[in-house]
Amino acid sequence: MSFDRACVIGAGSIGSLCAGHLGQVAEVSVLVRRPEHAAELNANGLRVSGKSDFTSRVTAATDPDELPVPELIIIATKAMQVEEAAAAISGRYPDAIVMTIQNGLGTEDVVAAHGSWPIVSSVTFMSGTKESDSHVHYELDTATWMGPFHASGTSFETVKEIGALFESVGLKVEVLPDLRPAQWSKLIFNASVNPVSALTDLPHVQLFARRDRDSDLGHLMFDLIEEGKRVAAAAGVELFEDPWEMNSRAVQQGSTHDDEYAHVPSMLADVRAGRRTEIDFILGSLVREAHRLGVAAPLSEGLYRLVKARDRSYDE
Amino acid sequence: MSFDRACVIGAGSIGSLCAGHLGQVAEVSVLVRRPEHAAELNANGLRVSGKSDFTSRVTAATDPDELPVPELIIIATKAMQVEEAAAAISGRYPDAIVMTIQNGLGTEDVVAAHGSWPIVSSVTFMSGTKESDSHVHYELDTATWMGPFHASGTSFETVKEIGALFESVGLKVEVLPDLRPAQWSKLIFNASVNPVSALTDLPHVQLFARRDRDSDLGHLMFDLIEEGKRVAAAAGVELFEDPWEMNSRAVQQGSTHDDEYAHVPSMLADVRAGRRTEIDFILGSLVREAHRLGVAAPLSEGLYRLVKARDRSYDE
Repeated sequence: MSFDRACVIGAGSIGSLCAGHLGQVAEVSVLVRRPEHAAELNANGLRVSGKSDFTSRVTAATDPDELPVPELIIIATKAMQVEEAAAAISGRYPDAIVMTIQNGLGTEDVVAAHGSWPIVSSVTFMSGTKESDSHVHYELDTATWMGPFHASGTSFETVKEIGALFESVGLKVEVLPDLRPAQWSKLIFNASVNPVSALTDLPHVQLFARRDRDSDLGHLMFDLIEEGKRVAAAAGVELFEDPWEMNSRAVQQGSTHDDEYAHVPSMLADVRAGRRTEIDFILGSLVREAHRLGVAAPLSEGLYRLVKARDRSYDE
Repeated sequence: MSFDRACVIGAGSIGSLCAGHLGQVAEVSVLVRRPEHAAELNANGLRVSGKSDFTSRVTAATDPDELPVPELIIIATKAMQVEEAAAAISGRYPDAIVMTIQNGLGTEDVVAAHGSWPIVSSVTFMSGTKESDSHVHYELDTATWMGPFHASGTSFETVKEIGALFESVGLKVEVLPDLRPAQWSKLIFNASVNPVSALTDLPHVQLFARRDRDSDLGHLMFDLIEEGKRVAAAAGVELFEDPWEMNSRAVQQGSTHDDEYAHVPSMLADVRAGRRTEIDFILGSLVREAHRLGVAAPLSEGLYRLVKARDRSYDE
């Protein structure tokens, strides 16, 4: 299988990083919501600066009918927009592979409800900042982890081919026969770092791992992560990495490479911009799993309700 | 005992309400931190609008040496400024009574370390908004509860006299031989409403009592209050009022008398203004009691650490 034509749906920072890089070796189309976003991409191409440095030509539109038929579709929207993205390609492109790259759990199921494509699950640790609609700055060049979404019958071979495609344009990849251990590791990491950051208005700083004084935030992070690990254990998932160590390492990197580390977790960026967060797909999905499995998770429940209420504060 | 000369330390909204009202029947002095605040009070007096309507002459200064010797001292600062306020009168006025009127627990002990005055404990449910340094708008004309701080040997008779003084100027008072049941009721109420409001950026609205959907904030409020009630029970305190009912009633009042109800809890006002909160004296004092008594209070601990971290965000 070859991937000469890829379509990226959603061109936030992760979608732009995917489209910009893949545009170096494939014909890349981009499906966006705003006509002016499409116009700017068509006029200027997509510039990537930072860890990579080039500009790729892309074809952008707000309507999939205006785009070439893709062999690979990467849904790179926020989790709560996956439904809309999948609906836009519902019934189309029966020969394509669809890849999801959201935080949290459950977006593969949303996609599967719209078509019988083989689905590739992924979680990414790379990060970037959108400087404009046609320019993304590539900050953390850490790996994207990919695996087959088994319920859709995806072969591991397909995942390896997509992994090879990403590596051919300089992106770091880890291909796994079962993504769940990695997905859950990142879920538990995100489900603690993001809400705590959004609620305290603090970027992901050293305090998140400090446990000296009783009031230190590291205690809360540790307790939250312990709850998440108990849920994972009850779900039969053996974690790929200890989320507490991911937390400690990330704040350590942040303190030594201030310019390079993406300090502001996406949920804090959302709150600061007055946007709704992805809480239902991140901490919310962990709370739902805890309920389903009968695991006590009082802190996770409490923080979930706080962020939900904060989201609702925009309606008040 | 008579109270011809009263001194109010701290002229935020509660201090201004006390000074303005007492100025109708007594010679009132006000000790403040900012010279321009003192100058404005000396020039214009203290105007009270809303539920009361008058202007009282007061004598204000930043140095107690410039004020007459008081018979009654009301420390009406925020909890974390009580230390500074008590230090300012340390060793002075041996014949005076000192009254505290902070949220939370423990400010009486801070005062007692600075002198052997009989101390009157109080908690207040009245509220107001400072329109300027010399004008306070009286919003909620609910009662102030007063009782003897027994460790300082205060007689109940003294408390009744101060209660009568407050009532003589139209303030509502409940005098109690033991304030702890009322103080703890308000502590648990405040220790839930204030942090949840500060963290969600929501005023004290109906959502705080709603428990329909799993994500509703009422569940968190209920669980937090249950923790507080377990701590009170372990401390041997029988509550004066159920804090969950206080919460439900307050949001109910808020929805029917929008103009009159003080929607924005003080901790949310602090966070919005970028000021440090009183968290250590409110939820913090409950967490310390939980630790001392060996009561599990994971949600209280978690929210305490979130607000502490939010306070620290001003340093980052």
